[in-house]
Amino acid sequence: MSFSATILTLYPEMFPGPLGISLAGDALLRGVWSLEARNIRDHGLGRHRTVDDTPAGGGPGMVLRCDVLGAAIDAAATPDDPRPKLLMSPRGKPLTQSYARELAAGPGVIIVCGRFEGVDERVIEARGLKEVSIGDYVLSGGEMAAMIVLDACVRLLPGVMGKEASGTEESFEANRLEYPHYTRPREWEGRTIPDVLLNGNHAHIERWRREESERITRERRPDLLER
Amino acid sequence: MSFSATILTLYPEMFPGPLGISLAGDALLRGVWSLEARNIRDHGLGRHRTVDDTPAGGGPGMVLRCDVLGAAIDAAATPDDPRPKLLMSPRGKPLTQSYARELAAGPGVIIVCGRFEGVDERVIEARGLKEVSIGDYVLSGGEMAAMIVLDACVRLLPGVMGKEASGTEESFEANRLEYPHYTRPREWEGRTIPDVLLNGNHAHIERWRREESERITRERRPDLLER
Repeated sequence: MSFSATILTLYPEMFPGPLGISLAGDALLRGVWSLEARNIRDHGLGRHRTVDDTPAGGGPGMVLRCDVLGAAIDAAATPDDPRPKLLMSPRGKPLTQSYARELAAGPGVIIVCGRFEGVDERVIEARGLKEVSIGDYVLSGGEMAAMIVLDACVRLLPGVMGKEASGTEESFEANRLEYPHYTRPREWEGRTIPDVLLNGNHAHIERWRREESERITRERRPDLLER
Repeated sequence: MSFSATILTLYPEMFPGPLGISLAGDALLRGVWSLEARNIRDHGLGRHRTVDDTPAGGGPGMVLRCDVLGAAIDAAATPDDPRPKLLMSPRGKPLTQSYARELAAGPGVIIVCGRFEGVDERVIEARGLKEVSIGDYVLSGGEMAAMIVLDACVRLLPGVMGKEASGTEESFEANRLEYPHYTRPREWEGRTIPDVLLNGNHAHIERWRREESERITRERRPDLLER
């Protein structure tokens, strides 16, 4: 069973988009994962396929109706579908590398992409949607956030990256930012590669990288050191 | 002068992708912002247009060469280009709503999308690249992260969202998560809309929303309350 992603969106034409290219796209072609984008509007009401209405209690924007979204979810997943149902939302649980790893180890995801002001709270409760946030900023909708979740998961699936991945992730999961990288040429615009990286002493290289990683984390993200 | 975005990438065909649809896409068509995706490989070396090489000091993955990326940056921007040059990287300054607002208030952005293990540190220093992270997770490349930065900025540009935006952002910038939303129908699957939202007393509605916003923030993101 490959990792199976179902997206509920008002813009199914956004998918696969960038997920159809490069690493994730190659894996999609090879069947390592599958992607289905379903249009919430197929469950809209009346001739105009209405999906939203004004917020109860007043205020700006429009709210996605619980009956419409509920029907879209029920049509996308049987009650025994084992995949977690996520709702992309800035109120959600922050996506982290370990959360991506947890999702990637499972059967896949159903992701609801919100638009407008928000989603009626009752459908979040009734269908057990888990709100997930990719960061502390506001987007025009959940679609690009869903792509981020999927890209973070897909690269972790067996056979997608292989050994290449391990370095980056381990350093991230140890709550350290990466050390600086260098490659050829040895000198460029008067700037050289640090000597320690050129002398072939692997213990020294290891120590330098660990120290640089700690220095950069301390300077840029002291919050990571406290976790 | 509209907001001008230049992307340096190995996958220019990923753009505009989802940024060409819906809110950001409409604004792109109307000329509220402009987007140019340039291929780093156009500055690759030799017959194979090589862009990367193995890391000095050993280790997995490949590193983007400083000479290649430097040439790509120099071809994309004159020395007096006023736009900040960003490099999408998990080591970077975290994107926040106020950082998006700061970028949106400027002339635009040049965004370098990394791939492989990383980018030679010397080009980051020599070209003054500002590393920016959209969250604490690893992606297959910087392209989707760049889309997130652009979507967060574009919706803030004058004439893109209008009044609709204000609610969500203010609540986010005050370091509070949003209160729950409800809309019609009044009852769904036995679930009702809270009475306070239906009685038309605006002072009560305001207070309820403020209290819910604080409760949800306390439960889900106590870290925001300390900022």
